[in-house]
Amino acid sequence: MIIVGEKINSSLKGVTDAVKERDADFVKERAISQAEQGADYIDVNCGTLIDEEVEALSWLVETVQSVVDKPCCIDSPNPLALAAALAVHKGKPMINSITAEQDRYNAILPLVQKYNAGVVALVMDDEHGMPKDSNTRVKVGIKLIERLVQDGVPVSDIYIDPLIQPISTSGDMAIVAIETIMGIKNAYSDVHFMCGLSNVSYGLPQRGLLNRTFLNMCMLAGLDGAILDPGNVKMMSMIKAAEALLNKDPFTKNYLKAYRKGLLEG
Amino acid sequence: MIIVGEKINSSLKGVTDAVKERDADFVKERAISQAEQGADYIDVNCGTLIDEEVEALSWLVETVQSVVDKPCCIDSPNPLALAAALAVHKGKPMINSITAEQDRYNAILPLVQKYNAGVVALVMDDEHGMPKDSNTRVKVGIKLIERLVQDGVPVSDIYIDPLIQPISTSGDMAIVAIETIMGIKNAYSDVHFMCGLSNVSYGLPQRGLLNRTFLNMCMLAGLDGAILDPGNVKMMSMIKAAEALLNKDPFTKNYLKAYRKGLLEG
Repeated sequence: MIIVGEKINSSLKGVTDAVKERDADFVKERAISQAEQGADYIDVNCGTLIDEEVEALSWLVETVQSVVDKPCCIDSPNPLALAAALAVHKGKPMINSITAEQDRYNAILPLVQKYNAGVVALVMDDEHGMPKDSNTRVKVGIKLIERLVQDGVPVSDIYIDPLIQPISTSGDMAIVAIETIMGIKNAYSDVHFMCGLSNVSYGLPQRGLLNRTFLNMCMLAGLDGAILDPGNVKMMSMIKAAEALLNKDPFTKNYLKAYRKGLLEG
Repeated sequence: MIIVGEKINSSLKGVTDAVKERDADFVKERAISQAEQGADYIDVNCGTLIDEEVEALSWLVETVQSVVDKPCCIDSPNPLALAAALAVHKGKPMINSITAEQDRYNAILPLVQKYNAGVVALVMDDEHGMPKDSNTRVKVGIKLIERLVQDGVPVSDIYIDPLIQPISTSGDMAIVAIETIMGIKNAYSDVHFMCGLSNVSYGLPQRGLLNRTFLNMCMLAGLDGAILDPGNVKMMSMIKAAEALLNKDPFTKNYLKAYRKGLLEG
């Protein structure tokens, strides 16, 4: 699994103030702890600070990479903020996100090309918006992959986001996301997937249980990346168990290593 | 999910002695607690007491059904023990199990027919024994279903056991079971599934975590029944969450009910 640590996001409590005040120690601590907990990328998002996002996002990238040797997942719909952050990023970045919406596609694609970035691609377009059914999502996703590939982006740099919506508003929303993953994986076996999970449980109690259970199903369907809190021991334990069961952990080496370190919550 | 409570099995500590001594209170207590915890069937198995299995198994059925209004899953390869237990059983029983092995099929089928019983059907035959790959398991399973149907057993009375083996001996064993479920479900959408889970984690630590994660994947694949300990709160919580996510719990009614009763471990 490709783990993107979600804890540096200005929509989270404490982060807004830390970014406003350019509290580097706060940001560094979150970067270090997430890297130690197993994050492959550190997500940086300050979308709530709309007036200063351009400056703040690049400050976040520099601050994170001053203490951890990890790439960032640069999380903004704003091309100017992305451009500034990408300019200071070291290593191969991930851009979060592009869609098949014409304006957004045209604005983000040059950045993906210029920095050979990985890119999170949402299965949305101008015609359907956020499609309700999995068939349409698969179609939109496949068209978006085809277009990105035509524009020179390798399939293995694309991270499809199947769009996670709450089962509390429509009972089939988890299944729609799972079917979207299966359908796109079936057409493009080398494409990656990436999504947040917590939307699925919005409005329900014991959200951790639902999020974890949902992630496990998505992993069987083909999901190989998620934006989450790597300090969530139950979630990370389930991921280790799922990888062992899916034969993605030869001789259950990582599972046993995590066990010996006391990191598996049974 | 169809939950078969596994706690009255003479291979479990304490149960052998209880059955030998015909300790009815012990058996009744286990039957009542499993029914309260959500078991749909109470499994009865005294296979380790081979000399007295015929008498003991029917005593177990009578003792269980003297206190709970649940059917039993009568668990023995011995046709004589099954016959004695079925003769005293009230309601529609489940027989555990039949296979496509000629001798076993011929011995068990008449009991299934006589009692209109549900029957757990293992994907084994004389030619392949316990097949190693999922393609063969699917073929054996489909042939077994076809034959049972020809012999008058409704598809909806058949509970396919995909055979769960340890990932510690062969890394693909969880996937083989999952693919077997998917393949047979694809051919017969009305067939049920039933299996124990704990074999999958044999030889590894934190077995509960692996068993639970595996069950969740099997549920996405189509598994709708399992033999387990309904007192395992983490397992039962995951099942409730999975049913909500799979849109098998309209308006997440059961999930919320379990939450209000304090039965969801997040």
